[in-house]
Amino acid sequence: MSGSTSQAPRSLPVDIPAVLVPIADDLDRVGEKFLEILADASAESREMVRHAARFNGKRLRPALTCLAARIAGAGVTEDVASVAAIVELIHTATLVHDDILDGADVRRKVATVNVEWGNHAAVLVGDVLFSKAYRAAAYLDDPFASRFLADTVGTVLEGEIHQDNVTRDTGLREAEYLEIIRGKTAALYEAALVSGAHYGGGTEEIKSLLGRFGHHLGMAFQIIDDRLDVSGDEATVGKSLGTDLSEGKMTLPLIRWLGDHPKAEREAALAQIRHAWSCEEGAQELARAMCQSGALERTDEAAREQIESALGCLADLPESLERTLLETIAQFVLQRAN
Amino acid sequence: MSGSTSQAPRSLPVDIPAVLVPIADDLDRVGEKFLEILADASAESREMVRHAARFNGKRLRPALTCLAARIAGAGVTEDVASVAAIVELIHTATLVHDDILDGADVRRKVATVNVEWGNHAAVLVGDVLFSKAYRAAAYLDDPFASRFLADTVGTVLEGEIHQDNVTRDTGLREAEYLEIIRGKTAALYEAALVSGAHYGGGTEEIKSLLGRFGHHLGMAFQIIDDRLDVSGDEATVGKSLGTDLSEGKMTLPLIRWLGDHPKAEREAALAQIRHAWSCEEGAQELARAMCQSGALERTDEAAREQIESALGCLADLPESLERTLLETIAQFVLQRAN
Repeated sequence: MSGSTSQAPRSLPVDIPAVLVPIADDLDRVGEKFLEILADASAESREMVRHAARFNGKRLRPALTCLAARIAGAGVTEDVASVAAIVELIHTATLVHDDILDGADVRRKVATVNVEWGNHAAVLVGDVLFSKAYRAAAYLDDPFASRFLADTVGTVLEGEIHQDNVTRDTGLREAEYLEIIRGKTAALYEAALVSGAHYGGGTEEIKSLLGRFGHHLGMAFQIIDDRLDVSGDEATVGKSLGTDLSEGKMTLPLIRWLGDHPKAEREAALAQIRHAWSCEEGAQELARAMCQSGALERTDEAAREQIESALGCLADLPESLERTLLETIAQFVLQRAN
Repeated sequence: MSGSTSQAPRSLPVDIPAVLVPIADDLDRVGEKFLEILADASAESREMVRHAARFNGKRLRPALTCLAARIAGAGVTEDVASVAAIVELIHTATLVHDDILDGADVRRKVATVNVEWGNHAAVLVGDVLFSKAYRAAAYLDDPFASRFLADTVGTVLEGEIHQDNVTRDTGLREAEYLEIIRGKTAALYEAALVSGAHYGGGTEEIKSLLGRFGHHLGMAFQIIDDRLDVSGDEATVGKSLGTDLSEGKMTLPLIRWLGDHPKAEREAALAQIRHAWSCEEGAQELARAMCQSGALERTDEAAREQIESALGCLADLPESLERTLLETIAQFVLQRAN
């Protein structure tokens, strides 16, 4: 079974849709479940909810859930397809709510549901997505998803609140940054794999191994995301760049860039950061300075370490198409340009 | 058991805390559960969550859940106390999210979490409250609350989206207004009673009777709320008045006031409504005009009909302290001034 893809060129950028061809049928079933869970929305909310639901692009999390269920043994059952859709709904809900802006920010940021229908509508659409996700979980026979995903959402929200709380805190340490992204991003990756393994009938050991793989993958995903905000190509990434810098978010590339300055130059570096908070031009200047330093390469290094840890979790699993796909997704996360 | 309160002067305004003295111990247990469910919030989120949790004032819904459980037979068990706290958490979450404003509204409205910490933080706090509520429901042995309350939240949100959708629609009919408040308000009252009856071990018949009581009570509560927005005393109600008018909400008093105008005067009435949307003074003028018309009395009449229907649902229950307390709460809802 593993022959067809084990020759994949792992050191080159990977086209995720092509990589996912072997599980295309599974992903289609997850897509159907996703729409089925949203189907009973009223005409009034349907348009907004569908607009929000278009957000999901790479289908990484659904793929991870399906692969975990296949590795666990039972494959992509009805419940597995449901739980994959539920995780993606939760992710979509958090995206919609992330775009809710404070009055002063409205003009500076391009957003989505909130730009189209206003902040209040965006809050309601996110609430609808969450409520449909919780509802679908609650109607599964096994309460695992209902409990585990409510715990996970709590962890994600704590990560986001923590992040808001350290906005413009130039003293933020790497350990605290890692704790924040563990909550706001890695926890849902971990949940995608653990849920798939659980509803796929996996042992506690398989759930734990795959969960740790998901955690490290999510950590790497967020670190690369934070690096792409500084160095990515705006058209490729599909969202405005340098927004983390102008919003006062302290991400790993910035923490490393600041840390690279000798004591004598630190005050000037801090002034440059404060300038980035004050205007778009300042943010662009800082982004250029960061690109010319070694800070971005050293950020990639941190992501690479996470991917190595992730791959280490798979080492004890028997070889299979599914394991190869997980490894390929891990390489993709490291090398993606959007 | 019913002797101590059956002499309560039902036609006079009722002080709810005094009315609830017979179930004060139950309410204290619900309050403890409420804090217990929120207890594992991080230090970062705790302050905001506690600020939001101070919102719950009259404790009407927890009282209804406890009374339903006592009527159902088993009384206020651990699970009943939990489910009462969960309903109140959901209510609190919707209040916090209701206050999320669009950029343009920020200066005009006095709000709470969002004024203190900003819109984005208010979204997260509401999400935390929802997630804690769903989590607590998911950890009950009986999945009824988890499923029924997710359904209920869906209904509440549909009501709110519907309401947003007909903002400034001066052609709104009473039937559609009633459908909106059935979702946004009455559904959670109904849920408070049905959940109490279910976890109190009640029959389907008891659940249905008490559920319908809750529905009508909630309808009356919202109708009176909408009337108080026009005629209440600002200091007593504790929030700014006439906000529905300036926000373009079409509530029952306004629908009835507009409907009272003969065809020849309708255009002038519409002009007065549009003026109310444009400035605070316009809203105050319109409120005064409505107070001088018979529209508010006719709004109270609609609330009274709902309360009569609510009381009708209790008629088949044996007399008891609990039934008397439900009747007293119904009278309070009709007569409350805040």
